Amino acid sequence: MESTARILDAITKPTDLHLLSNDELAILCNEIREEIIKTTAQTGGHVGSSLGAVEIIVALHSLLNCPEDKIVFDVGHQAYAHKLLTGRLDRFSTLRQTDGITAFTNPDESEYDVHHSGHASDSLSVALGLAKARDLNGGTNKVVAVIGDASLSGGMAFEALNHIGQEQTPMVVVLNDNKMSISRPVGALVHHLGYMRVSDQYRDARDALQAAMEERGPLARFVLDMGRRSKDSFKQFLFPQATIFESLDIVSTSPIDGHDIAKLRDVLSVVLESDVPVLVHAITKKGKGYAPAENNPEAFHGPAGFNPETGELKKSAGGPPTYTKVFGSALIAEAKADDSICAITAAMQDGTGLEAFAEKYPSRFFDTGITEEHALGFASGLAIGGKKPVVAIYSTFMQRAIDQIIIDNAMQDLNVVLAIDRAGLVGGDGATHNGTLDISYLRMVPHARILVPSDEAELVHALHTALAIPGLVALRYPRGAAEGVPLPESPELLEPGKSRIVRRGSDVAILAFGRMVHSALDAAELLKNQGVSARVVDMRWAKPLDVDAIKAAAKTKLVVTVEEGCIPGGAGEGVLEELSKLGSTVPTITLGLPDEFIEQGDYKEIFASLGLDGAGIASTIQAKLT
Amino acid sequence: MESTARILDAITKPTDLHLLSNDELAILCNEIREEIIKTTAQTGGHVGSSLGAVEIIVALHSLLNCPEDKIVFDVGHQAYAHKLLTGRLDRFSTLRQTDGITAFTNPDESEYDVHHSGHASDSLSVALGLAKARDLNGGTNKVVAVIGDASLSGGMAFEALNHIGQEQTPMVVVLNDNKMSISRPVGALVHHLGYMRVSDQYRDARDALQAAMEERGPLARFVLDMGRRSKDSFKQFLFPQATIFESLDIVSTSPIDGHDIAKLRDVLSVVLESDVPVLVHAITKKGKGYAPAENNPEAFHGPAGFNPETGELKKSAGGPPTYTKVFGSALIAEAKADDSICAITAAMQDGTGLEAFAEKYPSRFFDTGITEEHALGFASGLAIGGKKPVVAIYSTFMQRAIDQIIIDNAMQDLNVVLAIDRAGLVGGDGATHNGTLDISYLRMVPHARILVPSDEAELVHALHTALAIPGLVALRYPRGAAEGVPLPESPELLEPGKSRIVRRGSDVAILAFGRMVHSALDAAELLKNQGVSARVVDMRWAKPLDVDAIKAAAKTKLVVTVEEGCIPGGAGEGVLEELSKLGSTVPTITLGLPDEFIEQGDYKEIFASLGLDGAGIASTIQAKLT
Repeated sequence: MESTARILDAITKPTDLHLLSNDELAILCNEIREEIIKTTAQTGGHVGSSLGAVEIIVALHSLLNCPEDKIVFDVGHQAYAHKLLTGRLDRFSTLRQTDGITAFTNPDESEYDVHHSGHASDSLSVALGLAKARDLNGGTNKVVAVIGDASLSGGMAFEALNHIGQEQTPMVVVLNDNKMSISRPVGALVHHLGYMRVSDQYRDARDALQAAMEERGPLARFVLDMGRRSKDSFKQFLFPQATIFESLDIVSTSPIDGHDIAKLRDVLSVVLESDVPVLVHAITKKGKGYAPAENNPEAFHGPAGFNPETGELKKSAGGPPTYTKVFGSALIAEAKADDSICAITAAMQDGTGLEAFAEKYPSRFFDTGITEEHALGFASGLAIGGKKPVVAIYSTFMQRAIDQIIIDNAMQDLNVVLAIDRAGLVGGDGATHNGTLDISYLRMVPHARILVPSDEAELVHALHTALAIPGLVALRYPRGAAEGVPLPESPELLEPGKSRIVRRGSDVAILAFGRMVHSALDAAELLKNQGVSARVVDMRWAKPLDVDAIKAAAKTKLVVTVEEGCIPGGAGEGVLEELSKLGSTVPTITLGLPDEFIEQGDYKEIFASLGLDGAGIASTIQAKLT
Repeated sequence: MESTARILDAITKPTDLHLLSNDELAILCNEIREEIIKTTAQTGGHVGSSLGAVEIIVALHSLLNCPEDKIVFDVGHQAYAHKLLTGRLDRFSTLRQTDGITAFTNPDESEYDVHHSGHASDSLSVALGLAKARDLNGGTNKVVAVIGDASLSGGMAFEALNHIGQEQTPMVVVLNDNKMSISRPVGALVHHLGYMRVSDQYRDARDALQAAMEERGPLARFVLDMGRRSKDSFKQFLFPQATIFESLDIVSTSPIDGHDIAKLRDVLSVVLESDVPVLVHAITKKGKGYAPAENNPEAFHGPAGFNPETGELKKSAGGPPTYTKVFGSALIAEAKADDSICAITAAMQDGTGLEAFAEKYPSRFFDTGITEEHALGFASGLAIGGKKPVVAIYSTFMQRAIDQIIIDNAMQDLNVVLAIDRAGLVGGDGATHNGTLDISYLRMVPHARILVPSDEAELVHALHTALAIPGLVALRYPRGAAEGVPLPESPELLEPGKSRIVRRGSDVAILAFGRMVHSALDAAELLKNQGVSARVVDMRWAKPLDVDAIKAAAKTKLVVTVEEGCIPGGAGEGVLEELSKLGSTVPTITLGLPDEFIEQGDYKEIFASLGLDGAGIASTIQAKLT
């Protein structure tokens, strides 16, 4: 072997790591880091989180027998090292690309990936389920969950901790504590974790136990086994309820250096033999080993790409602003005129365009952590108290708060605005992050109104309208660059349930929702060349629908709906229902995203492949007319 | 005044309580208890919870100025005393009846009711929102949340505690700790609360602080104010992080007797003046003051009615078993034949018919607490581990777990069965508990399949089918008595997406879902007398739909769909979409529940008022045909 040969290239399966020394594993960690930096510099991706979790992952695979043993990653964006060690090194350069390696853990991609991660705080529930299935099967495999401190703020994680503490079945939770939610640490829990990290008093109480664990011997085993076997009073003596985890009957270690491979392996090798659930508190640094990412963790949470030598971030290509940015600016303008407006985000301050709002109106800005349920309950309270909360959450994550939208907000007709970002296809993040269901999950909600702006000027009007009219109003808009139309000098009030005709025509009526208006206009232009006169209507509202526009459409030869959302329960079905009520028998076509989970890729390419670009829509219409 | 005059009758507004002595307030508590027992004996209702919270509510109203001050009840079924003190004594006998007093707090009913409670664990979020709105408004009103120990297991409550600990704005959380979830205490948190209740060590550490609070003087004020003003080290000295609440920077009292009106008022009067959030840990007894309810708290959680003298529960009227009971028995039969079947409930063991399963197969039964999100994540892990989990949750509460259904289960095509009880209208519990949205929120989920059994025999087949076929399968069935048809000797496997014709006919095709088949049959009989031949199809599946049946229906003069669910996103819209794809221009009518929140009442009466009984459907069809 030449001197440039890498250990990483020699790994064919993760159990190969059992053969390596601590020094060799440390070298492997460096090689993995280089690979992550090299690839993400090109493809973009979750650099910071993945660099921070390298030693944890290497240590786990050096001790576990995967895939029989199970590692459940909470939000798989920390799991690139795991992907590189489980047969995906060769294809890793395709990360986040069409047909390439996916952004999160994905059981369709590898037998080593336990579940589709992507939505935070679910790993502990899945891991406990696996542990109980093992018990029922009479198995002996290990189950480990790896969860970041930010994900712990999600209520689902707490629900699982509560159940883990009750079940007392063996499993290991590795708390990857990098002191970072995606935006910044929020919530009292972070303060508590900080106390655990720095308190001498707390550490002193632990030292004997901790030393035993790090020595790995029979004493460690004895002590941990005590967890289950001993009576409460003795257990209390060994494990004072000094941490929130111990309050829930989960033994937890002192904080240990999550980048010290030797110490990690020492502690893990003990706790993996325990017969009670144990939490290993590993302190890590986001971006570890790559100075630009260490120094600027927010920018390196999910950059689009960067120069690996200098750390210079890929500049945006110019062109139109993102919908997100337009929303953020428009909200500031609205908030200037109305001091009852507040903004709420669930750990996505930057992603939802609220940085400037947070700076300008700190007392009216709330980052509640990864807590969509609470965010909507909190909004409910603010609204009852006379405020106008705007809750900005991605479409896919808003799925966590549907019940609170219904019961805590819509039922009471509270003045709450849902700013649903990342609606539609999202690109590299793929199936777990596509926002294809929001029109359906909002249409079913009584009293809800849904605006679907077709460009950034319409978004400005939509936000203004949502704030001006009473009740629960949602607006949904896509990820990424807007359409490049001029922004209005002042926003307009859009009449609820009224559309606008953007192209006149008499043979066919295309009722389009959101940015699909542009595909529809392209289709109309193509149809014109084929002698078909197509009307294009920007419907503006997915609920209430414009019944007059639908009535007028029913007088053409064909009514076509097109939306960037799923067909079942979507706006197109709503149009069919209105046509049914009108007694219309006009032929119809409902176009939208298929009833499937859609993989990562450029949204325009996916539209084209689904027949949702201008050419596709035109040819579908032509086929129906002839 | 005569000797029989009651204090309760003299109360015109809750601030009248300010004028009463502790002794008079204690008498008032007894009068309230008698009123609750008298009414619920007739109407049924949440007797146990409401009897347990009487002193807490009386103490709060004796100190607060409502409605300016706000009491946010978590699950308003503990709030009957509050209803009696806020102008609803006269109408209290109409509790849970059509047009009567509603089951939970309801802002449409009273300005003293802050929000629509009914779904657990939301009170802390709403209360914090109210407190922050007050701060922004420059107000000084008090905000109090009253939450039971069972509701604390919900992750949303934890999310809120984490945010409350961060915000440090004044508010009071009264933990109504009656050591009872609806079924029974679950989770490690309950164990922790028990530790707080009984540990001498814990109490000793508190005694000085507690004594100060109970003395109410300037010392108490000083100590509490320290919470915010002091540095961490001193605060740590005063408030050791001995409880989970203190881990989250929320000062908490020692457990106090929640039925001692004097002590409650002493402690509350101090903490209501604090400038930090404080949790008051009140120990109560479910059913307090009524021996039958104290002795049998599960039966008296929500009885249908009882003899107030003897406590004898109202017997069911005979007749068919409930859908719930049929489900429970059928599941045991399935579990006997297949030991991979597990059952999960979220604190509703009895309500979902799983008592017998829990007894027969304790190791395969899991009550996870009021934790719908975790329940679905846990099911995911069990399924990945080779088990077949059946998750039995009410339709309205399953709204809490839609994201987990999508991401953690459907995306991975796991073998998980959703047993959705209380689908459709639920009677006395009213708007927050109606299960009208599940067809819509499941239809939008890729890979999901939905069975809608029309009677108890079909339910047996549906459960068998859901367990036999791979992937995520839901079955939804109503609350209450089934139809009285004979149960099958052995269950049948239903072919996915295949319906059955239950009445032949050629003029009109009625495609019916669930128990609406019976309304459709009644309608067909009426139509026959009017010379119209109506086919009735039991669709059996809301997804996938039977395309052949729809194609055949399109050959009649009119296609009618009827379902016990909302129209937007419902099965009827799915049929319209299939007809559109078929190119059909047959006239259609989609019948279902209106796009509104539907109030309490007998479901048959509501069907009739909505035109969803046989007569209503027949006349709608006649009007369309003529």
